[in-house]
Amino acid sequence: MEDLTERVRIAVAQQPFMTTLGVTVARAAAGEVDLELPFDERLTQQHGFLHAGAVAAVLDSACGYAAWSAADGEADVLTVEYKINLLEPAVGERVIARGRVVRRGGRLTVCHGEAYADDTLIATSTTTMALRPR
Amino acid sequence: MEDLTERVRIAVAQQPFMTTLGVTVARAAAGEVDLELPFDERLTQQHGFLHAGAVAAVLDSACGYAAWSAADGEADVLTVEYKINLLEPAVGERVIARGRVVRRGGRLTVCHGEAYADDTLIATSTTTMALRPR
Amino acid sequence: MEDLTERVRIAVAQQPFMTTLGVTVARAAAGEVDLELPFDERLTQQHGFLHAGAVAAVLDSACGYAAWSAADGEADVLTVEYKINLLEPAVGERVIARGRVVRRGGRLTVCHGEAYADDTLIATSTTTMALRPR
Amino acid sequence: MEDLTERVRIAVAQQPFMTTLGVTVARAAAGEVDLELPFDERLTQQHGFLHAGAVAAVLDSACGYAAWSAADGEADVLTVEYKINLLEPAVGERVIARGRVVRRGGRLTVCHGEAYADDTLIATSTTTMALRPR
Repeated sequence: MEDLTERVRIAVAQQPFMTTLGVTVARAAAGEVDLELPFDERLTQQHGFLHAGAVAAVLDSACGYAAWSAADGEADVLTVEYKINLLEPAVGERVIARGRVVRRGGRLTVCHGEAYADDTLIATSTTTMALRPR
Repeated sequence: MEDLTERVRIAVAQQPFMTTLGVTVARAAAGEVDLELPFDERLTQQHGFLHAGAVAAVLDSACGYAAWSAADGEADVLTVEYKINLLEPAVGERVIARGRVVRRGGRLTVCHGEAYADDTLIATSTTTMALRPR
Repeated sequence: MEDLTERVRIAVAQQPFMTTLGVTVARAAAGEVDLELPFDERLTQQHGFLHAGAVAAVLDSACGYAAWSAADGEADVLTVEYKINLLEPAVGERVIARGRVVRRGGRLTVCHGEAYADDTLIATSTTTMALRPR
Repeated sequence: MEDLTERVRIAVAQQPFMTTLGVTVARAAAGEVDLELPFDERLTQQHGFLHAGAVAAVLDSACGYAAWSAADGEADVLTVEYKINLLEPAVGERVIARGRVVRRGGRLTVCHGEAYADDTLIATSTTTMALRPR
């Protein structure tokens, strides 16, 4: 699994937006990727919480890497669509975004995502991704 | 309408994440807000396009301000959930995110969003927002 | 266009659930299909309105036939996912469900749907469909 | 819990559309409701599978009753919106639709739904519901 975590780290590092957000890889296994977003004032909204848009971006990415890891990292993964419910404000020191593959298909993979802020469930999502063989 | 555009500008300036993304207000009317996201390498994904997460964040915000403007700016607007379909890669010099109120209710407002990259429709969204009187 | 309307009618007649609901084809053009659902007590919920599930089923079908008509009726259309916002109760004599293609792709087509009950917008939807060549 | 199951049965019986579909209550606990939809040719699509619209209607209802049961049956529950991913065709003798409360709020409740056809996961959904005190 170490190898997979390392490969996801390299893939995340290739996305400048992930670096801008300060995202790191907490854990990776086949079909399961957890990303971490530390609190950063630059990412907040008007009440000082992490902006929902930043949380959603990390959650979508966690789902994307989960789909990618389930495909053995051998396909390009494109987000077709996602839906997110924001349950609680993103308060705390860090957000953990967990992406999990629900169904892996040949062309389409569906993932479920959950975001936690210091152990509180703050968002849940479902993402449909297209796989394109390289 | 100038006054409303100015008020949306002030509201956007109060969200550090919008400043981090480089978002500006292109247009505002009651129930209609257009935000602009200039291309910025810091916001890209691995192929050099604007990251879907950045596009989604701006589109959700355009919808939020559209709901806020329809409520005369007298309520707090919280995103309950949204769904976004990503139709084309975000290629070009700028993205325009258009938020439009579909139904304004007492407690819940529904908006439709469309994002364009240099006149190409790249994403469509629907957002449900809760209004909390101040 | 008459020919297309007739072809959609034949396709609708092949779905027993559409017959059970009492759905008819109001209009069909390339990428645009309107279905009609007459009020029927068998389809109501506890307050006597048409059940949201019946409205959603017809709206999803209108989107499916819109995608099918845009593909010249030469592909099988499978709904991958949809999202629906229910805006108002379905009160009245009939519901018109309008499906419109937003983006036609080679493998995926995205449609937008709107349902009206006697001219009141009661629901809006977005659907992602997979096309499988026959 | 028997009492709650009985109360959900009475509530389901008050919705003529549930009777038209042939839905029964398999299980009910606070925040958790399972509905059963037996295969019925009247509910099929052109390939002989249960129509996605019928599956979605039952899944939305399972989520609605889960929200209602979590609110002690003392509130009216209105579906604001839902999103469903259809993962596999609905083949088999019966569909079980499981609704589970993810977050219970004062005004809004979010539920997650899963539909199984003879033990195969065929659909997953997320529903936002508004609670109106009676």
